[in-house]
Amino acid sequence: MEILDNGITSPKGFRAAGVHCGMKKYHKKDIALVVAGAPCAAAAAYTRNQVKAAPLLITMEHMRRSGAMLRGFAVNSGNANALTGGRGLRDALRMARTAARLAGAKPWQFAVASTGVIGRYLPMDRVLPGIRAAHGRLGTTREAALEAAEAIMTTDTHVKECAVRTRLSDGTLVTLAGMAKGSGMIAPSMSVPHATMLCFLTTDAVVQPEVLEERLQYALDRTFNMISVDGDTSTNDFALILASGLAGGKEVEGDAAFDEALLHVLGTLARMVAQDGEGATKFLTVEVTGATSYEDARRAVKAVLNSNLVKTAFFGEDPNFGRIVAALGNSGCPVSVDRVCLTLRGENDRSAVLVSNGIPKALPGKRAFQTARAILKEKNLHVLIDLGLGRHSAKGWGCDLSYGYVEVNSAYTT
Amino acid sequence: MEILDNGITSPKGFRAAGVHCGMKKYHKKDIALVVAGAPCAAAAAYTRNQVKAAPLLITMEHMRRSGAMLRGFAVNSGNANALTGGRGLRDALRMARTAARLAGAKPWQFAVASTGVIGRYLPMDRVLPGIRAAHGRLGTTREAALEAAEAIMTTDTHVKECAVRTRLSDGTLVTLAGMAKGSGMIAPSMSVPHATMLCFLTTDAVVQPEVLEERLQYALDRTFNMISVDGDTSTNDFALILASGLAGGKEVEGDAAFDEALLHVLGTLARMVAQDGEGATKFLTVEVTGATSYEDARRAVKAVLNSNLVKTAFFGEDPNFGRIVAALGNSGCPVSVDRVCLTLRGENDRSAVLVSNGIPKALPGKRAFQTARAILKEKNLHVLIDLGLGRHSAKGWGCDLSYGYVEVNSAYTT
Repeated sequence: MEILDNGITSPKGFRAAGVHCGMKKYHKKDIALVVAGAPCAAAAAYTRNQVKAAPLLITMEHMRRSGAMLRGFAVNSGNANALTGGRGLRDALRMARTAARLAGAKPWQFAVASTGVIGRYLPMDRVLPGIRAAHGRLGTTREAALEAAEAIMTTDTHVKECAVRTRLSDGTLVTLAGMAKGSGMIAPSMSVPHATMLCFLTTDAVVQPEVLEERLQYALDRTFNMISVDGDTSTNDFALILASGLAGGKEVEGDAAFDEALLHVLGTLARMVAQDGEGATKFLTVEVTGATSYEDARRAVKAVLNSNLVKTAFFGEDPNFGRIVAALGNSGCPVSVDRVCLTLRGENDRSAVLVSNGIPKALPGKRAFQTARAILKEKNLHVLIDLGLGRHSAKGWGCDLSYGYVEVNSAYTT
Repeated sequence: MEILDNGITSPKGFRAAGVHCGMKKYHKKDIALVVAGAPCAAAAAYTRNQVKAAPLLITMEHMRRSGAMLRGFAVNSGNANALTGGRGLRDALRMARTAARLAGAKPWQFAVASTGVIGRYLPMDRVLPGIRAAHGRLGTTREAALEAAEAIMTTDTHVKECAVRTRLSDGTLVTLAGMAKGSGMIAPSMSVPHATMLCFLTTDAVVQPEVLEERLQYALDRTFNMISVDGDTSTNDFALILASGLAGGKEVEGDAAFDEALLHVLGTLARMVAQDGEGATKFLTVEVTGATSYEDARRAVKAVLNSNLVKTAFFGEDPNFGRIVAALGNSGCPVSVDRVCLTLRGENDRSAVLVSNGIPKALPGKRAFQTARAILKEKNLHVLIDLGLGRHSAKGWGCDLSYGYVEVNSAYTT
């Protein structure tokens, strides 16, 4: 597998653009458009939040009506078009219609997505001209992909793109690429087919929609569904993959190389989102082993990543490991305290045993305490938790809770 | 029902004291002791966190062995004695033994509780002399009750006490009083008999332990179990009620006046805890009506109170009501967006309709938006949510998420 410095235009068959239509301030791009020359096999994952934004509802309908064969998608940032009633639905549909008409496609061959403030109507007098302007700029260049990736950002501080090329079992060389946004309101819980983390993937592999859907869910459960910035699952979380089939070769069914490429792209984008957590100063990887089931291990990982007390302790570079054990005890995952082992690992594989079989080892005055404090000053921290009960494990990613998080979120709309 | 300016020594039969043993800095009191002259009917509620602190495990055993008939309790603040293995259990037992010996009681007639940092051994060379010093100061005065209430505080900025006198159905005048601590790591989930919110109640009513237990659980579910500061349920949450029976009269069984008194004292203390949330600048009351079941209503209330995005929006005085609807959608409580009505009410019954049947009403430029912004500057805010689906309702209390919360929690042990 070769890692490319490229974006969603790298697989054959996709053109992209990003423009500023006037919804966001300071001339930041706010409309992204991706168009394929012919219908692509598509699979989508939507937020499990019961309150789903209008563009998601429209996209669900379009996926059904098109038989999951799409020509492209249009995205706006700066406004979530959520909690906007019937008018919101009509606005989302008009976005799809406009993009489709320009591409010479049917409205239901287009997906739409939105991200931004909830409970405001879209300024359609800006959005529709924006889609037209984007269509006029569509291109296959590296820059075109970057423009689109920029246009889906909200509070993100970095563009999130990833692309790989891999050889499938039949020898076919395929490219898989993605772009994502998200830095807050991040605790995705997406399921196919019912995902304001947005993630868009393109590939030129030959894949049927059903296979694509199954592989997307498998990879999301091990990547985006294992990151957490603040535990709030958005009304707008959405992931979409389009497969043009232009690489040719044999149809992908259970191809390890394809799964590896998908896990790599989604994993890289998911970690970028966690690293870009609003106000984050630390990037946390939490790994739970020795759990009685995979589901329990996942639950334990998420409980630790979602605990405000654990997150503030990391921000404070404070070896307050008891909070990690308390979070485990709240997780719903079976825990037997006297079997719990907790290790903190830093950037150069330097590590400190914090808890061994339920007994704290990093007490003030002890060497492990000093080592832990030194490791905590680093930016990339690994927390290894062995529950000592079973054979299952899971891994997840998150960040600390800082003054910056409060700042970003206490003044988001006003 | 008469509200008294008093504490846990106001019911007949209880003496209290609070001293500084040297565990906390700046001569702050850190040992509280309450002793009754004769065995009292007792009921306790313990945290549902699977990781329970040593004093809770010892108290559970003492409740069993004594047949829920206790002579008193000893509490230390500054150290949670949690995650401390066998040594922690021995230390908790020594606290009970020391208090019991001084009172001329059996060790299992004493409950113990601890609050503070997790994963550190208790400094027994300070704790035990502290219990002895407290015993030497035991008294029934207003000051004695206040001392005890001060000694259980950690990051609390205010003492939390409440006392009422009420007349039971048979004419007996009984007193019920309580003290509590807690301002962070607060999301109690306590059940009898399996609650670092600590709450201690005393009463002179005549009640059997089984009735006391049942009434305590009923009242906790409507008070402490409905507050949330940060969603983290502690390893040490604990509530205890002792009934001396010295008021005489008929045995309390299903007495509305007793329930009212219990709900008042627990409700007042619970709201004090929520108001004293670490770094809190706003006090939030969330009320959900129109839910399909009581459990669903409770779940919806807690989801809103636990959402970091909702909490930071309130800190920012930002009418970002979409976040409230998003939190409802994540709660697991059935929600039909087009039936959701959301009203914000301030201190002088001034109110603003934010969402009506799923349609946002407080949009920038509209009067409701201006009203909402004005109300948001107040300190006591009510969020009224009508789900429009059923006849069940629930109410809960919480606070905003401020820079202060991050400050307090990022530098707690160090």
